[in-house]
Amino acid sequence: MNQYAKPLNKLISELSKLPGIGGKTAQRLAFHILSMDRKGADALADSIRDARDKMKYCSVCGNLTDEDPCGMCRDPKRRDDVICVVESPRDVAAMERIKEFKGRYHVLHGAISPMEGIGPDDINLKSLIIRLQNEDIKEVIIATNPTIEGEATAMYIAKLIKPSGIKVTRIAHGVPVGGDLDFADEITLLKAMEGRREL
Amino acid sequence: MNQYAKPLNKLISELSKLPGIGGKTAQRLAFHILSMDRKGADALADSIRDARDKMKYCSVCGNLTDEDPCGMCRDPKRRDDVICVVESPRDVAAMERIKEFKGRYHVLHGAISPMEGIGPDDINLKSLIIRLQNEDIKEVIIATNPTIEGEATAMYIAKLIKPSGIKVTRIAHGVPVGGDLDFADEITLLKAMEGRREL
Repeated sequence: MNQYAKPLNKLISELSKLPGIGGKTAQRLAFHILSMDRKGADALADSIRDARDKMKYCSVCGNLTDEDPCGMCRDPKRRDDVICVVESPRDVAAMERIKEFKGRYHVLHGAISPMEGIGPDDINLKSLIIRLQNEDIKEVIIATNPTIEGEATAMYIAKLIKPSGIKVTRIAHGVPVGGDLDFADEITLLKAMEGRREL
Repeated sequence: MNQYAKPLNKLISELSKLPGIGGKTAQRLAFHILSMDRKGADALADSIRDARDKMKYCSVCGNLTDEDPCGMCRDPKRRDDVICVVESPRDVAAMERIKEFKGRYHVLHGAISPMEGIGPDDINLKSLIIRLQNEDIKEVIIATNPTIEGEATAMYIAKLIKPSGIKVTRIAHGVPVGGDLDFADEITLLKAMEGRREL
């Protein structure tokens, strides 16, 4: 990588630190950046600094936001009595894309994983319990990932909340729409059978 | 893309302007940037601005550089009597990786392409002719790409230089090392046959 002049090498090395960006891609991106007009390059650099400076976590739900509380927590059009619990801000975005859920969110920033030494205190869980005590919540929908960690977290939260009488639900597992039964792994198929509904 | 707060949306949209970076990848990169410490994000933003500000073209060979003339034009250990003509700074880097060529370079910044309206005056060719008049050059190696445009450019340059008595050579075309004859296209195979050498 030392064939180029210092500023270009530096740019290539910074770009290749990004996930999924290898040496060749970093080079291609760097040359593209050099070919951009000054305004374009500045806009990119500014957006990086800006996002890093302005984005923070909402003190209510834990989602990424530039205002506190975040837009979704402040939105008067959303239902106050349902909270959807997810692992990450990207999951909030995924949920929002289906344009169906109109309640509030709670972002855990991770999942319980004894293997990696991540316990209930290491994720954004305490604030969820405080919300449940202070707000008038009727249902908690647990939408953690369908992984071992996500399942364990769902179980843990369900156990924790149930005594309070609040309804706790888990999103359905099953065969993805448009998928092929043949390609579904056994556990997914098992869950799909377990979760079958009368037509 | 409007599920996120403004600075994050802006970052995602700026990133997805880069070549080969789609919406999903831009999101993944943006979240990674948010998870970086401030120093890391600043280093990335600075490297973009720096590269854009400091990199320029060498007034001698046309290669990208932060000093003028560039390191390779100033290097006293390189031969002065051979010039390798390439289309782009990336081709210089590719050549340098083989660690074989120890002469000078000349970067055309493109190739002649009548289809796209790019003529001899639109590439960095005039300065090559001036170099050939002023410097004591014995050989010009034309290493433009093995494309129609690259070939046309090679032919044009060869015709232009030959009357001066300077040796003009073209890099060999043939079957790539490690490749499979079966996968080679017909023109490559034809060139490989034409360029055969006695063992």
